[in-house]
Amino acid sequence: MLSKNQIKFIRSLHQKKFRQKYNIFVVEGEKMALEILRERPAQIEQIYALSNWVEEQKDILRAYINKTIIISDKDLSRISSLKTPNKVFITVRQFDAPAFPADLSTQYALFLDQIQDPGNLGTIIRIADWFGIEYVFCSEGCADFYNPKVIQATMGAIFRKKVIRTSLQSLKGHYPQLPFLGLVMDGDNIYHSERRGAGIIVVGNEGSGISRENQNHLTHRLSIPAGQDSRAESLNAAVATGIACAILMQP
Amino acid sequence: MLSKNQIKFIRSLHQKKFRQKYNIFVVEGEKMALEILRERPAQIEQIYALSNWVEEQKDILRAYINKTIIISDKDLSRISSLKTPNKVFITVRQFDAPAFPADLSTQYALFLDQIQDPGNLGTIIRIADWFGIEYVFCSEGCADFYNPKVIQATMGAIFRKKVIRTSLQSLKGHYPQLPFLGLVMDGDNIYHSERRGAGIIVVGNEGSGISRENQNHLTHRLSIPAGQDSRAESLNAAVATGIACAILMQP
Repeated sequence: MLSKNQIKFIRSLHQKKFRQKYNIFVVEGEKMALEILRERPAQIEQIYALSNWVEEQKDILRAYINKTIIISDKDLSRISSLKTPNKVFITVRQFDAPAFPADLSTQYALFLDQIQDPGNLGTIIRIADWFGIEYVFCSEGCADFYNPKVIQATMGAIFRKKVIRTSLQSLKGHYPQLPFLGLVMDGDNIYHSERRGAGIIVVGNEGSGISRENQNHLTHRLSIPAGQDSRAESLNAAVATGIACAILMQP
Repeated sequence: MLSKNQIKFIRSLHQKKFRQKYNIFVVEGEKMALEILRERPAQIEQIYALSNWVEEQKDILRAYINKTIIISDKDLSRISSLKTPNKVFITVRQFDAPAFPADLSTQYALFLDQIQDPGNLGTIIRIADWFGIEYVFCSEGCADFYNPKVIQATMGAIFRKKVIRTSLQSLKGHYPQLPFLGLVMDGDNIYHSERRGAGIIVVGNEGSGISRENQNHLTHRLSIPAGQDSRAESLNAAVATGIACAILMQP
């Protein structure tokens, strides 16, 4: 059974302020738990789990005996942020910020300019994972990577990808020779864009797109053409990112 | 000022049961309000709005004087389902189910097999709007079209598109000659798929994909290839739909 203070501490991790204070975040649910155990086992602090799940996963959990705490359904509901708590709840040390790669000239990367919706941010990291994009750069204004909704929407991709908070200016300073390909409303038809095999794909904020300042750093302005007679104003930011990756990285 | 009973009635519309009982749904926020006023004015039941918004939009609201009720910030917070209530709240009569078109042989349409997440369903209807797809068919297991999260995620597209609840079997009965193009994990490379200019793009459930039964109705099985060394299991359903539309409908 968890003490009141333990529950209070764990629940505080649903807030960014406390995640930063303790340098810890939370991974919930069976699927995501198995992902973090496989991908980043060294980062795990504590595993809180129902007894039948511990029994079920005993081979995997053998290496974590001293980190596993069996809790009741009731305590799991108390600490969970999910509508339907799902067997296991893990506290994880936040990852060290990855270094900028020495060379980015043979791969695509993403830069996200103020993607504020956690679901969109997570979904975009999942897209990067699907297309084999290693680096996702995020502006200061992007949602917290460790927000539970981000983690959930990545479906585990966040444990594999290198996610770095930086500015587009700084990125441009590091990689002045790279193409910076911005997704904008009035750009060139992305279907006709040269297949470069490398470049930073720049995705703008859900409502306002790429900031004026960051638009100055673009070397190319690309648009996904709408259908004939379309009256839609725009695409969802994650959907636009997926389409851009699918077109630019067509194998 | 709204009475207790009025507030109770309006709040009940956040639940599917009462939306169905009264055949009404809710449109919230300035942007969406202007969309419904432009696209489907005849469906509007009541407009609840802050006085400064009514003043600001007086030209548009002239035709709705007897349907506009000025309310306080406090009452707006009471009836709103948004975290940040946004000036206006409209009750709208649900749309009549559109008829099946006599001919679908010169356009693409979507069939959604148990898309359960309201955000995904709304985002997919928004994708249809972007690419000029007129018909979105939804299986019984899809989320309620009138769920506030669906409405919000469509960004107004739901007021323009024809969304029809039906089974894939029934659709196949209506259009036996059409290609039924299913997005599956082990299909043919979608980039090499013939450009047909028509067909039903079938999208499966977020977790389990296209049901076994519905797979029998497919004439083509298509996959979006993952990048080299990708370890991601799948793409988000809305992102996959967007990519499929972008590739199959490339102008």
